[in-house]
Amino acid sequence: MLKCGRIRYTNDLPIFAAFDEGVIQYPGTLHEDVPTRLNEMLLSGELDLAPISAFAWARNAERLALLPDLCIGARDEVVSVVLVSQTPPALLDNTQIFVTQESASGRNLLRVLLERRYCIAPSYVEDAAPIERARRGFPALLIGDGAIDAIEEFPRSQVYDLGTLWHEWTGQQTVFAVWAARREIVDERNEEVRACMDALTDALTWSKRNMATVIAGAQRRFERAPGFYEDYYEKLNFTFHAAARSGLAAYCRELYAIGAIPQAPLVAPEVTDAIAR
Amino acid sequence: MLKCGRIRYTNDLPIFAAFDEGVIQYPGTLHEDVPTRLNEMLLSGELDLAPISAFAWARNAERLALLPDLCIGARDEVVSVVLVSQTPPALLDNTQIFVTQESASGRNLLRVLLERRYCIAPSYVEDAAPIERARRGFPALLIGDGAIDAIEEFPRSQVYDLGTLWHEWTGQQTVFAVWAARREIVDERNEEVRACMDALTDALTWSKRNMATVIAGAQRRFERAPGFYEDYYEKLNFTFHAAARSGLAAYCRELYAIGAIPQAPLVAPEVTDAIAR
Repeated sequence: MLKCGRIRYTNDLPIFAAFDEGVIQYPGTLHEDVPTRLNEMLLSGELDLAPISAFAWARNAERLALLPDLCIGARDEVVSVVLVSQTPPALLDNTQIFVTQESASGRNLLRVLLERRYCIAPSYVEDAAPIERARRGFPALLIGDGAIDAIEEFPRSQVYDLGTLWHEWTGQQTVFAVWAARREIVDERNEEVRACMDALTDALTWSKRNMATVIAGAQRRFERAPGFYEDYYEKLNFTFHAAARSGLAAYCRELYAIGAIPQAPLVAPEVTDAIAR
Repeated sequence: MLKCGRIRYTNDLPIFAAFDEGVIQYPGTLHEDVPTRLNEMLLSGELDLAPISAFAWARNAERLALLPDLCIGARDEVVSVVLVSQTPPALLDNTQIFVTQESASGRNLLRVLLERRYCIAPSYVEDAAPIERARRGFPALLIGDGAIDAIEEFPRSQVYDLGTLWHEWTGQQTVFAVWAARREIVDERNEEVRACMDALTDALTWSKRNMATVIAGAQRRFERAPGFYEDYYEKLNFTFHAAARSGLAAYCRELYAIGAIPQAPLVAPEVTDAIAR
């Protein structure tokens, strides 16, 4: 069985809930962890296949095959990647911005926006608790549950959703996680990779008509105000369709433009479905 | 601009609503018609790209390129393709079944189920108003809005959803429409095909977070009980992901087994997204 990863956040539950509920059996092992750790484990060979950050894939595309069908992204608002700032982002030149250590993907999206959209050059300071900096009035990048908390805590005018900023600027969607496998696994164990992706997409389709069950599971994991997950999951896009791939390709070109990756990889998922099986 | 089709039913509104609402501009012309007519127009060259019935694509796969990303299908219950019968389907051997003229796809799915799952050989009689036959106690295949009406009208025990029967038997999803383009259009006008598919997938992602608007549009087109469309659209699957392609491939193999198509086509969408665009 393939050693597979899943993200220890509620954002991917619409893909994994059917396994948790015992409706569909996943044909691999499932290790749950934070995104940065999944990136490391996939590269080190501790995992064979996992959802990883789009940035981690872009930087390691020679070793990691991009898989088709699934991603985690959004058309515009992504909710869980926000800049909190009392000053509009375009005016943050020469300012210190406190950034979370949790996500290189979000930080690089911020860099792209500030350096390419607004043509400014702030400095970025890693901080273990950027939300505390935000509370004291400094600009801060927040990710995941911290970002969701910030949306509730700070005035709406001070919270900038990076997915919205990106979509306004480029017209493109955001992709913050993709499914990838080590290239040798795709070459040598193609049938197993395909079976895993098949189970994942089947599970996503199951979730679409069982959202109440998915949301109940999310509330058990991380309790939020009633209605929060309904709204959140509506904003997320899990299908790696043409518009999502186009958005990822645009992001990769911008990552290359700011020097964050040595080259822009081809956004061409490895076709793992057997022809006419 | 490419001459494109859209289905004159409410089932594809989650893909087309963003164009109706003026949120996204579609980069082609859009001709709205019933599925059988779209099939004919695509084959005759009156259209370049359209959603057509899965069966029509399977029979004409040499001339029609299968496009990626989008389909209309369901994991199990499809709602709009049902057999109404006072007798369980397995006991319909040597019986006359009245079938709609509207859909070759649904009729062939019924044949596959009866001939391959239950190993029986009924006779099929085309009828302009099969719901009238059902009211008089005869088995009848109903499609689209007639099927939805039948679910409300007949006792639940007499209404067999073909998607459910197919999923119980094979474990596979149902795909009843796919997007296809004439092969020469894909070869000669690839950029335009890609732009159309991009707009369609972008529109689908928009709909996901604007379902109230989509449903209001559906109610204006064909009024149904409150809550009907919410439930219906949850059951449908619009993404042509691995599990959907696997379901379509299984359907094609069964169509070939009953002699409905001369050969089972390869279920391998033409990759129209430019690499690293």
